[in-house]
Amino acid sequence: MPLRGIVPPLVTPLLDNDTLDVEGLERLIEHIIGGGAAALFLLGTTGEFASLSYKIREELVQLSCRFVAGRVPVLVGISDSAFTESLNLAHKAAQYGADAVVITPPYYFSSGQPELLEYLKRIMKAMPLPLFIYNMPVHTKVMFTPETVRAAAEIPGIIGMKDSSANLAYFNQVQYLLKDRPDFTFMVGPEEITAEFVMMGGHGGVNGGANMFPKLYVDLYKAAAAHDMPKVLELRDKAMQISTTIYNVGKYGSSYLKGLKCALSVMGICSDFMAEPFHRFNEPERKIIEAALEKLDYKSLL
Amino acid sequence: MPLRGIVPPLVTPLLDNDTLDVEGLERLIEHIIGGGAAALFLLGTTGEFASLSYKIREELVQLSCRFVAGRVPVLVGISDSAFTESLNLAHKAAQYGADAVVITPPYYFSSGQPELLEYLKRIMKAMPLPLFIYNMPVHTKVMFTPETVRAAAEIPGIIGMKDSSANLAYFNQVQYLLKDRPDFTFMVGPEEITAEFVMMGGHGGVNGGANMFPKLYVDLYKAAAAHDMPKVLELRDKAMQISTTIYNVGKYGSSYLKGLKCALSVMGICSDFMAEPFHRFNEPERKIIEAALEKLDYKSLL
Amino acid sequence: MPLRGIVPPLVTPLLDNDTLDVEGLERLIEHIIGGGAAALFLLGTTGEFASLSYKIREELVQLSCRFVAGRVPVLVGISDSAFTESLNLAHKAAQYGADAVVITPPYYFSSGQPELLEYLKRIMKAMPLPLFIYNMPVHTKVMFTPETVRAAAEIPGIIGMKDSSANLAYFNQVQYLLKDRPDFTFMVGPEEITAEFVMMGGHGGVNGGANMFPKLYVDLYKAAAAHDMPKVLELRDKAMQISTTIYNVGKYGSSYLKGLKCALSVMGICSDFMAEPFHRFNEPERKIIEAALEKLDYKSLL
Amino acid sequence: MPLRGIVPPLVTPLLDNDTLDVEGLERLIEHIIGGGAAALFLLGTTGEFASLSYKIREELVQLSCRFVAGRVPVLVGISDSAFTESLNLAHKAAQYGADAVVITPPYYFSSGQPELLEYLKRIMKAMPLPLFIYNMPVHTKVMFTPETVRAAAEIPGIIGMKDSSANLAYFNQVQYLLKDRPDFTFMVGPEEITAEFVMMGGHGGVNGGANMFPKLYVDLYKAAAAHDMPKVLELRDKAMQISTTIYNVGKYGSSYLKGLKCALSVMGICSDFMAEPFHRFNEPERKIIEAALEKLDYKSLL
Repeated sequence: MPLRGIVPPLVTPLLDNDTLDVEGLERLIEHIIGGGAAALFLLGTTGEFASLSYKIREELVQLSCRFVAGRVPVLVGISDSAFTESLNLAHKAAQYGADAVVITPPYYFSSGQPELLEYLKRIMKAMPLPLFIYNMPVHTKVMFTPETVRAAAEIPGIIGMKDSSANLAYFNQVQYLLKDRPDFTFMVGPEEITAEFVMMGGHGGVNGGANMFPKLYVDLYKAAAAHDMPKVLELRDKAMQISTTIYNVGKYGSSYLKGLKCALSVMGICSDFMAEPFHRFNEPERKIIEAALEKLDYKSLL
Repeated sequence: MPLRGIVPPLVTPLLDNDTLDVEGLERLIEHIIGGGAAALFLLGTTGEFASLSYKIREELVQLSCRFVAGRVPVLVGISDSAFTESLNLAHKAAQYGADAVVITPPYYFSSGQPELLEYLKRIMKAMPLPLFIYNMPVHTKVMFTPETVRAAAEIPGIIGMKDSSANLAYFNQVQYLLKDRPDFTFMVGPEEITAEFVMMGGHGGVNGGANMFPKLYVDLYKAAAAHDMPKVLELRDKAMQISTTIYNVGKYGSSYLKGLKCALSVMGICSDFMAEPFHRFNEPERKIIEAALEKLDYKSLL
Repeated sequence: MPLRGIVPPLVTPLLDNDTLDVEGLERLIEHIIGGGAAALFLLGTTGEFASLSYKIREELVQLSCRFVAGRVPVLVGISDSAFTESLNLAHKAAQYGADAVVITPPYYFSSGQPELLEYLKRIMKAMPLPLFIYNMPVHTKVMFTPETVRAAAEIPGIIGMKDSSANLAYFNQVQYLLKDRPDFTFMVGPEEITAEFVMMGGHGGVNGGANMFPKLYVDLYKAAAAHDMPKVLELRDKAMQISTTIYNVGKYGSSYLKGLKCALSVMGICSDFMAEPFHRFNEPERKIIEAALEKLDYKSLL
Repeated sequence: MPLRGIVPPLVTPLLDNDTLDVEGLERLIEHIIGGGAAALFLLGTTGEFASLSYKIREELVQLSCRFVAGRVPVLVGISDSAFTESLNLAHKAAQYGADAVVITPPYYFSSGQPELLEYLKRIMKAMPLPLFIYNMPVHTKVMFTPETVRAAAEIPGIIGMKDSSANLAYFNQVQYLLKDRPDFTFMVGPEEITAEFVMMGGHGGVNGGANMFPKLYVDLYKAAAAHDMPKVLELRDKAMQISTTIYNVGKYGSSYLKGLKCALSVMGICSDFMAEPFHRFNEPERKIIEAALEKLDYKSLL
């Protein structure tokens, strides 16, 4: 059975570059589970995994599994440029009770497609948990082609995919090639397109905004799954308002992450400290986020 | 009122590099109009506009307008790296009775966004017909950002947009910024995503496959506009079968165009000659296309 | 025998978007020939070829050939996305007395390497003049690979290459593959690297700065060809001063072209009008260019 | 005083994905030092740093420092997507006696230039060793712009740069901006262009081929530094023969690394095992490398 619903990619609450905001983490997890999330995804791009030391990644997995306490499945990102480090983290995730792991292609050296498929085959031989592949071409410089996804779905232990390409033509192709594999979970990253994706048969969304407003994205998912178009259009309008305001302050590619962490801080959920190479918003940008939340009437979304 | 429905980007039937297949053109136009197309788009990417001499572009516009004879609106692509040539062609299009023109950013030099907006403002001062902007970043190297689209929609005479980015997050953003402009036509290129796009409020598709099977894409459009999900899923399956077979022979980016022209030739509609730098399929690839059409039971789609 | 020396890519002096600055053109040509240029290259990237109508391209070729009057060879850019338009312009160039033509890959559709080679073979069958291939990946999205250059050098009538990739590892590879073809001219675009290139056996530079200061770049070429390192380092310092000041005003990729045309106008040589999509500098930027020329003590370079 | 000469980026000899080939490592280091290298660079791209676990990176640093025993300076790559891991490794490098460290931009998230400069400032506050910045845009997706390099050179502790962009126009610009900083070491990666670079005032090459043939690249460096053009051209020809044969087997971007490791194995220096995601050449490719070495008359180069 595929995993279905909203799987928030957990923001990693930090006090400094190498210290977790443990209380913030606990509040965030309660907030998300309370909002109806289907599972939690630790150490994704939204979780700033690539900027975190291995010590803190391990602490995050351990604490999160303890806080979640089996209420929903926990997925752990193990992406790394080094095969061995990915495996090491997978083994720790298994030991702390996580349910599955998630991996991008190695992201320093770019692999060709046959190299990529070979990589997955080899790492699965030693993998203690089921695995989702994670398509994130902006950061990794390489796509899993639809044919590679199809072949990867045949590797024992690979149970699903998260796609953050935002390319709908791409995932329609992937979906078409996986028609005979209704058990293979297919999730999409960008919250702006989760509704369309789910209406067309996708299983759900790994939506960063669900750190702030889990209920909103869960409701949007449900409306889409039920083909309730008026509801979809109404809720999607809220989601687009979030995307075009909260995520749109400042000029760098990091504006999404900065806006999201800032909003969580304004909402009193967790610290907005960001790991290098990013830095939290200063006061002027924070004021813009506060105003955007106000205009959203954000308490009505909780 | 926006234009709604399926607007096939007409394949340009050729006998050689600088000679139209006039009979094929007439058959193709009848075929497309007979299938319920809402309008015709000449000299788009599918029409190989960039590979055609100005002589043949003019002939194509003249003949097509004559063959269409006012039954549906005719849109003419005037994209060029040279401002003056774009305007010259626009004036000829107006003279032959076309209804609107369509333009990409200049595609040799890349413009910044302010330069792009300025370009549109200047060209519209001398433009004899309403204009659609055409987002095609793969070929032009530059996107119209959502903010530029919003600003362009304020320029008198710019009445709509065709987007071929396949980036659904992008067009959701554009659509959101254009909420107060229900009159501004918003069309999408890739036929694989037209249904989702239309369900979410998009106005239609500029779908290359509608050269072969206009009725299929028109029916898909109608099902999407009516939010008839079972019908959408059934028809989209056919569309995906086309995309993953007819367009997927050979290894170059040109496989879409080659497959489409080859299929039209197999179907007896027009010549498959392609303008340089492309060449029609040889016999082995043609056999694959024939088999794919057979497997589609293509006559049932006409 | 290869062509050797400095071949300035002529700026196209304009009065408006579709009118040549004929007097400026004549002054510019005299200025360049007076500075010792080995040949002239019309309608290159520096000549804004892609932004010019065919009418004006033809006028430019006709007038320039008349003004040059056989004193140096004239090369004419015939790059276009359309095969037929390239050939048409080549025939006009031959008719007006040009000596050779220059072509990039088609730049709307991207070709694979075999398609590119095939393109060259086909166009050479009808080509009235010898041809240089022109590698300009930033604008055309495609490189001629070293292997394709090697194969192109075997096509009758292809006599040389201009490379604007700025990738020295690349042209060392090309040069190595062409070791047995000392007759095949190999020129480099960026003036910042012409000296290195020539010391290593390259034949010269197609240097935009030679519109302003032909003598400087000719002297730099000669010093490099003579392996006179102290002289090379001294002159290269001047060239780098130009590159980091004149070409470095404003934030767009077009700052090189704008600065160059502005400087020519300040120097009283020709108009700085630019074809769409670019626009000449306004007064504040012009002041910066004036100051940079002053600081260069530019009259000493003439 | 800048570092001058050839600084081979050490291949990391491996027995399997997480085990060093210790004997091979010792032989390789002796071979390289014997050939006249000016320093050693561990854990660069050629050293497959990104594919190695932290355990093995630490072992490599410890063992290499012991084997080198102070005969030449040791530079250690500390590039990572995580700030804290980079610092951890720098502290270990200092503890084992390394002389300097080398860092690329973080390579998962892309930074803007101000973010990049800020990153360097912050990491230098806790850095126990002098640092070289490492420009490697193919893998990291981001360039240090010339202005950022200039500003970085003002940060205490940053003593030099290695540039692997192969863009000669770029490094001429960097060099020009650093004219007043003769103490700032400026090294270039690609061995195909080291000679030009050194003749123009660059300080040396971080040349992968110097793992195989240190003497050849040292001699080429010396000839370039002495402006001995006939010698440069003769030796560069050998270098180009290596680049176009040993590094040119197979079709992936990894052919350089695979060819290099394979040649070292054929030469009896160390194992050719490669860390995931790459794999050593199979027998057919190895035969090609053997033949290429034969044709080079490689023993004459030792």
